[in-house]
Amino acid sequence: MQTLVLEKIDNITLREIDLPLAVGPRDVKIRIHTVGICGSDVHYFKHGGIGPFVVEEPMVLGHEASGVVAEVGEQVTHLKVGDRVCMEPGVPQFDSPATMRGLYNLDPAVRFWATPPIHGCLTPYVVHPAAFTFKLPDNVSFGEGAIVEPLAIGLQAATKAAIKPGDVAVVIGAGTIGAMTALAALAGGCSRVILADLVPEKLALFAGNPAVTTVDVRHASLSEVVQQATEGWGADVVFEASGSLRAYDNIIDLLCPNGCLVLVGMPPEKVPFDIVAIQAKEVRIESVFRYANIFPRAIALLASGKIDVKPFISRTFGFADGVQAFKEAAKGQPGDVKIQIELA
Amino acid sequence: MQTLVLEKIDNITLREIDLPLAVGPRDVKIRIHTVGICGSDVHYFKHGGIGPFVVEEPMVLGHEASGVVAEVGEQVTHLKVGDRVCMEPGVPQFDSPATMRGLYNLDPAVRFWATPPIHGCLTPYVVHPAAFTFKLPDNVSFGEGAIVEPLAIGLQAATKAAIKPGDVAVVIGAGTIGAMTALAALAGGCSRVILADLVPEKLALFAGNPAVTTVDVRHASLSEVVQQATEGWGADVVFEASGSLRAYDNIIDLLCPNGCLVLVGMPPEKVPFDIVAIQAKEVRIESVFRYANIFPRAIALLASGKIDVKPFISRTFGFADGVQAFKEAAKGQPGDVKIQIELA
Amino acid sequence: MQTLVLEKIDNITLREIDLPLAVGPRDVKIRIHTVGICGSDVHYFKHGGIGPFVVEEPMVLGHEASGVVAEVGEQVTHLKVGDRVCMEPGVPQFDSPATMRGLYNLDPAVRFWATPPIHGCLTPYVVHPAAFTFKLPDNVSFGEGAIVEPLAIGLQAATKAAIKPGDVAVVIGAGTIGAMTALAALAGGCSRVILADLVPEKLALFAGNPAVTTVDVRHASLSEVVQQATEGWGADVVFEASGSLRAYDNIIDLLCPNGCLVLVGMPPEKVPFDIVAIQAKEVRIESVFRYANIFPRAIALLASGKIDVKPFISRTFGFADGVQAFKEAAKGQPGDVKIQIELA
Amino acid sequence: MQTLVLEKIDNITLREIDLPLAVGPRDVKIRIHTVGICGSDVHYFKHGGIGPFVVEEPMVLGHEASGVVAEVGEQVTHLKVGDRVCMEPGVPQFDSPATMRGLYNLDPAVRFWATPPIHGCLTPYVVHPAAFTFKLPDNVSFGEGAIVEPLAIGLQAATKAAIKPGDVAVVIGAGTIGAMTALAALAGGCSRVILADLVPEKLALFAGNPAVTTVDVRHASLSEVVQQATEGWGADVVFEASGSLRAYDNIIDLLCPNGCLVLVGMPPEKVPFDIVAIQAKEVRIESVFRYANIFPRAIALLASGKIDVKPFISRTFGFADGVQAFKEAAKGQPGDVKIQIELA
Repeated sequence: MQTLVLEKIDNITLREIDLPLAVGPRDVKIRIHTVGICGSDVHYFKHGGIGPFVVEEPMVLGHEASGVVAEVGEQVTHLKVGDRVCMEPGVPQFDSPATMRGLYNLDPAVRFWATPPIHGCLTPYVVHPAAFTFKLPDNVSFGEGAIVEPLAIGLQAATKAAIKPGDVAVVIGAGTIGAMTALAALAGGCSRVILADLVPEKLALFAGNPAVTTVDVRHASLSEVVQQATEGWGADVVFEASGSLRAYDNIIDLLCPNGCLVLVGMPPEKVPFDIVAIQAKEVRIESVFRYANIFPRAIALLASGKIDVKPFISRTFGFADGVQAFKEAAKGQPGDVKIQIELA
Repeated sequence: MQTLVLEKIDNITLREIDLPLAVGPRDVKIRIHTVGICGSDVHYFKHGGIGPFVVEEPMVLGHEASGVVAEVGEQVTHLKVGDRVCMEPGVPQFDSPATMRGLYNLDPAVRFWATPPIHGCLTPYVVHPAAFTFKLPDNVSFGEGAIVEPLAIGLQAATKAAIKPGDVAVVIGAGTIGAMTALAALAGGCSRVILADLVPEKLALFAGNPAVTTVDVRHASLSEVVQQATEGWGADVVFEASGSLRAYDNIIDLLCPNGCLVLVGMPPEKVPFDIVAIQAKEVRIESVFRYANIFPRAIALLASGKIDVKPFISRTFGFADGVQAFKEAAKGQPGDVKIQIELA
Repeated sequence: MQTLVLEKIDNITLREIDLPLAVGPRDVKIRIHTVGICGSDVHYFKHGGIGPFVVEEPMVLGHEASGVVAEVGEQVTHLKVGDRVCMEPGVPQFDSPATMRGLYNLDPAVRFWATPPIHGCLTPYVVHPAAFTFKLPDNVSFGEGAIVEPLAIGLQAATKAAIKPGDVAVVIGAGTIGAMTALAALAGGCSRVILADLVPEKLALFAGNPAVTTVDVRHASLSEVVQQATEGWGADVVFEASGSLRAYDNIIDLLCPNGCLVLVGMPPEKVPFDIVAIQAKEVRIESVFRYANIFPRAIALLASGKIDVKPFISRTFGFADGVQAFKEAAKGQPGDVKIQIELA
Repeated sequence: MQTLVLEKIDNITLREIDLPLAVGPRDVKIRIHTVGICGSDVHYFKHGGIGPFVVEEPMVLGHEASGVVAEVGEQVTHLKVGDRVCMEPGVPQFDSPATMRGLYNLDPAVRFWATPPIHGCLTPYVVHPAAFTFKLPDNVSFGEGAIVEPLAIGLQAATKAAIKPGDVAVVIGAGTIGAMTALAALAGGCSRVILADLVPEKLALFAGNPAVTTVDVRHASLSEVVQQATEGWGADVVFEASGSLRAYDNIIDLLCPNGCLVLVGMPPEKVPFDIVAIQAKEVRIESVFRYANIFPRAIALLASGKIDVKPFISRTFGFADGVQAFKEAAKGQPGDVKIQIELA
């Protein structure tokens, strides 16, 4: 099969590769249609690794995928050949302590697409557990199906926040994850999201939404906007989705008494926390590692129109232009939120 | 002051009445603008009482109100004369055990407008604690401000459900409370509301909402609709908002494993519960008594456009036609959700 | 193997039976040591079925078991031959939607020991998933290990209640499940348990515990005891563990505002619920179906001395006297809480 | 009245002072019996202030108090003259947004005993809101009543942790607050507390408790103890109660997946947090500022014998020796947990 392979740092090729495609009794085989390029894909491409995960052998990239069921295992009942689907990319040990507690994303045995040494899905066919393959409704496109994965991170964050109807949220960072978190916070019950970034092109994508207040932090004080919007009470939830160290300066000041800070972005180093300030408001802090049991929720929110991700699919490339797609993604242009590749 | 007074059963008059209007240091005086007629007002009008609450003296009706601040007590800081406001009608003892636990709605000392022997607000001026008087944003009308009270019941129900983003909810009953609960469930995080009633005019008000599936239970099986919409898993939440005994037949069948039933409607008699069926799904049941700390959330959701109540304000009468308004409300016509009276 | 087999109603024999004992890669084989007799075992013995579960073929009874690991599958890492263990008797489909949500007890595919047509564990050897086999600390006996199963039900109930430290709980019913629930409620954070029954021998087992108030409901009013103990506020939690219809009379009156009723006992028919009374206190109702992720917690509480179940192991029979043990259990004598059979 | 007055830094005198003692309708007057010396009292004594709170005028110290009701306001119903009581020292504005949400401890208007410029309770009589005055059962001594305040902090921490029955907790720090937190964690549902400190005299007070594992961190690795006790899974909850910066080194490693870190101690400066490590386990972080609605729970746990604080009342001084008591407290001797002063 022609497959997009990361050979080594800064070197992706589209070439034949031989991957195992045996379909177990609880598996399905999927013809891949669309795959989104994630920041982690780009990072492996440009740096050859992320923390302890180092690319030592050629590896297929991609973990944000939709496609069509091509074959089903004998015990599979909820899917059939021809179903349009999207796939959750991290597969745990199903009888592990973490999985049985509903925390399968935290199972150390998780095998996650395009995380060395596990191959990803930028290849015409994959075999995947049926339990992690979800049918797409007719009104959800393959492109939308392939953005379910980053949306699921935003929804995991919104779920952890335990939003109460009418909460005011701050989202710091309007990149892919920040944008998905803002959409999730609104769909998840917030009356208003105050979205902060320093790239006007990203903030502009929310311009038409009356429930979103955008703040260009180069020109305005996020703290002042929050205090004004909440009459001095503070925001119920702050989602830190930028991974920037500077975002943490005075971040506790943004919160109301007993408010919740959700750690979504991954800062490059340790962050100084003012424990006494946290205590003075009895702040709760939640954190997010991917998602668990979120894909069906994301799909339902797309299908009912509660979340519209289409403005965030910036550009789509054909499979033959896949290498070019990665080069474009690596540029990180302000107007690009999500770049996708179509295989079918 | 000219005031709408329930003299006795079936007898409302607009007449002069003398009510105390002394403004304490933490109170405000409000010029009433709009008052909605609640089912309880109609019930006092037609039956002279509700359960243990019997109208033994002439009583002013009305508890869903908006208006303009006319005077503020000396310790009041968050309101000023001229502010457009709506008011929460039940005032607890502020240092009671229930209030200090955040459950002031359950304080036995609550004094609630238009619940005998407490007068209501269908009168030109009222004095009220500033803590229970909430400023309306410019883009929220007096009519919308006066419907915050029933909306708050729906939001209390949605809050109790602890909706997770993407939940599917069933709302049984599309009267005022059911309609407000449906709006609250959607704003509060549901991907879809399946709304059941047997009055097509009420269901029709949700016709344009792609996230609402309406079910006329005279012609379709609610259970079948739910099973189909959830692929046999069941709804995450069922809000019973009809108060009908028949709604409870097989209500547990509508729920998914560990789903939540919220008791909003008030049935006229005891309801048989199938405990073993509840246990087999580990169903959680929550219940609602008015609301606590919800008014600011309701106002925020109206202001940001997340909830639109305007289609549910069916008719508006002038104060001089107040008696007629009550007569119309008592008819319970299918197209009437909320009837309001304007005093100003 | 000599095995205790329910041949048909009222007919148990100890006889040879051939059961499959192949050990899969994630299984262990266990030499059974002690098995407790549950009310459900007795019910199958005397009635031949429970609801939809009918004994149509000879079936091995027993699901409360401890033993010694005799063989381990090749992928098993947390157990070794010779480990003393107890076993969780209900095995779900591990990749089912319910299991992945942490609700494996609600998975329709659960195979539960001694629930037709699944054989139980009153047999010298069983093969079981290692994931559902838990090591016993040295200071937890086989008898205690075999009572972990009913204790787990009590702990599931205490977990569902979300007890806050210092809560006052009522437990209605002091049979095995009620007793285990009382122990669980105390260990789980309650300052006091008010335990109600009409069998003085059962209440007497709690006589020495200063945190337990026993109420013989033939001679005293539970409601009065609760009101006095809580100065009129009501209990934070009521665990209904009797399955008696009469227990539900005025049960809501026992609760404080926003209190929690936990449905543990299984009444033989539908129970009338006073919805309006529930709402007036905003009561939360939780329900219990077996347990999930509780066995390690039960074992830890036994090992640390926080829970002492020894007084509740009333009598122990040898395997050769197993039929007699069932006959004794069927008598339901007041002093018998748990009867166990030792196989080894 | 003879009163213990902090005149200025390092200068406490027992002298006459004139304090207002008018009893409002919802107040009680209390004859003080016992007052505990808190670290904050000592800090004001030795340093003249804590952060923004500076002692600029002579101030009465003390906020951990028990006594006897001497007079009751006309609206007080739950207390009478002669009742033995203890008092919650921080009084909020009762109709504030924070109080009405059940978060009165976070109300900016709180007036807290012995926090400048508010006088404390080391004086023969105080007037206090009846709502914050709690009756002591006969079997709870005045000394125990006066230690309810620090115990309430431990219980607030245990409540925030949302302990599930059988959780394993680590408590870092065995000073007064750490010790109270350890007692609270055990009473609140933990099967085991692993208590770490470097003062053997403090750890020794837990020597007889089979559910407590003490770790002298000068000689043993807390991390290793935790990993061994939990078979590599990690602790469900870590309470940081030392305020030491070093306690935060690798603190996340102590936790299990989705475990909870509770911030109780107050470090003197900002603490570096490893956000990515927090995320990899989806750790939840809770924080504590005093307590709300906890005093009745603390008293109930003392009365039922679930918590025994007597070993932690190290020494008791007469009022005439009050200055000496403060000097002893300031020494911070290893064997002293709580020093109290008896006024009556």
